Amino acid sequence: MVGPGDDAAVIEAPDRRVVASTDLMVEDRHFRRDWSSGYDVGRKAAASNLADVVAMGASPTAIVVGLAMPADLPVGWVDALADGLRDECAELGAVVAGGDIVRSDTLTIAVTALGDLSGRAPLTRAGARPGDRVVLAGRPGRAAAGLAMLTAGHPHAPVVAAHRRPHPPYGEALALATDHGATAMIDVSDGLLADLGHIAAASGVRIELVAARLPVDPEVAAAAAQLGVDPIDWVATGGDDHCIAATVPARATPELPVIGDVFAVAPGGVAEVVFVDRPTPPAGGHEHFR
Amino acid sequence: MVGPGDDAAVIEAPDRRVVASTDLMVEDRHFRRDWSSGYDVGRKAAASNLADVVAMGASPTAIVVGLAMPADLPVGWVDALADGLRDECAELGAVVAGGDIVRSDTLTIAVTALGDLSGRAPLTRAGARPGDRVVLAGRPGRAAAGLAMLTAGHPHAPVVAAHRRPHPPYGEALALATDHGATAMIDVSDGLLADLGHIAAASGVRIELVAARLPVDPEVAAAAAQLGVDPIDWVATGGDDHCIAATVPARATPELPVIGDVFAVAPGGVAEVVFVDRPTPPAGGHEHFR
Repeated sequence: MVGPGDDAAVIEAPDRRVVASTDLMVEDRHFRRDWSSGYDVGRKAAASNLADVVAMGASPTAIVVGLAMPADLPVGWVDALADGLRDECAELGAVVAGGDIVRSDTLTIAVTALGDLSGRAPLTRAGARPGDRVVLAGRPGRAAAGLAMLTAGHPHAPVVAAHRRPHPPYGEALALATDHGATAMIDVSDGLLADLGHIAAASGVRIELVAARLPVDPEVAAAAAQLGVDPIDWVATGGDDHCIAATVPARATPELPVIGDVFAVAPGGVAEVVFVDRPTPPAGGHEHFR
Repeated sequence: MVGPGDDAAVIEAPDRRVVASTDLMVEDRHFRRDWSSGYDVGRKAAASNLADVVAMGASPTAIVVGLAMPADLPVGWVDALADGLRDECAELGAVVAGGDIVRSDTLTIAVTALGDLSGRAPLTRAGARPGDRVVLAGRPGRAAAGLAMLTAGHPHAPVVAAHRRPHPPYGEALALATDHGATAMIDVSDGLLADLGHIAAASGVRIELVAARLPVDPEVAAAAAQLGVDPIDWVATGGDDHCIAATVPARATPELPVIGDVFAVAPGGVAEVVFVDRPTPPAGGHEHFR
């Protein structure tokens, strides 16, 4: 309604509530300019925030962007960043509504995404109930595999594209909110185990996952075989894919992998996430480069 | 409605529109830790964004905060920052609704402020009309004088407090929107001449200011005398006070200094801001430390 160039932007919020999420990306921690283009970084910076808004069950409407940049950053890189931000927003009908640019020794991109709930209750982490099923949208482990292949000197591996640019399952996530009665939902940014752990803790439930049901992408499997690692580690603890995990009532039938079930915490037990068919790796919490 | 700890915050937007402004503050460019406490930086980071929202004629509702911080930043500094952000918001009944913390070599604070228009049209820079008067709320030049005194080695000068923590005239600015029919309004962050220049350009008008009517704070005058400079330079080009400048219809009677008038651009003329009673200094654009 009012875009860039004034003191502030004005954005539609037809629901009378607005969903807001903010994230920072720092050069050499969240991206490397020799590994990712400005366009890639723009897509990723927008996606990581848009996925958070979608994970609340909201439709993104706009982002505002803060850019702290070294004086010698090429103008073309900044233009490409802006294109990437715009194009990722466009996938959801959202826009870049405003921003701020300052000088800094450290290239840093701060994105705040806004969204509208269209009358629905927000899907927090606290709504999972015993008897619910756990479903997963997106292709987990691809970004972690891509980063591992880049680090190991295989920049042409297909999975490297997933490190450069995530493809959050926006449509599937919104459908979980609108059509399938999801009870809790989360953007997988810390890793599947860690983020389901957040749902378990907030909801006061135990989540049992079947590792054999986790989707292992063929490109992830190929990279794992090449590097001699277990692909399930990437799938269970990688964070940069911005997959969406949710709990749904047992009667719901989304066309998504059902990877586990929600149980009440046993007397004396704790709210946690475990594999039932293999040892549960440490959730860790997704680490970026450092 | 949903605060920190989930994928995103949910904030009331009763007006069905939301105003959003974002700004970055970078250590050693916008603040120095030996000159400002964490609490000061928190107040200032919030104030600079809240003032932008207020300058649209909107009431701030919430901020979200991104913090990029070195590993050795003391926990106490971060706690004080959070207290400062919270307390500045509380002056307007707003809250800190969410955030993100990442590691970085460069301490950077990214704030996005949201606000509600309560049914009013947003006050952009484009609404000034010939015949309007120019009014100013706040105490311009104090932060610039404070920075000059700090730089000159006078850290105990009273005006130094204004560098550490601005006091935007939130209440006066909102009253201009609600009670006095302001036609254009701007947060003075680039300096009075530069920011009124933005109104002149966006509105297609000429603004004539009377330098003799600019409020020169006694502490600013004292600092100027001590350093042997003209205080009007600080008043006309200093930016960190977050004063609010506005144009109002001639019939309006806010209890604020009337510092000039709005005219149509003469044939062949340009949209600009000039002093009528002394040479107009270069508007510059507010410079921080570097």
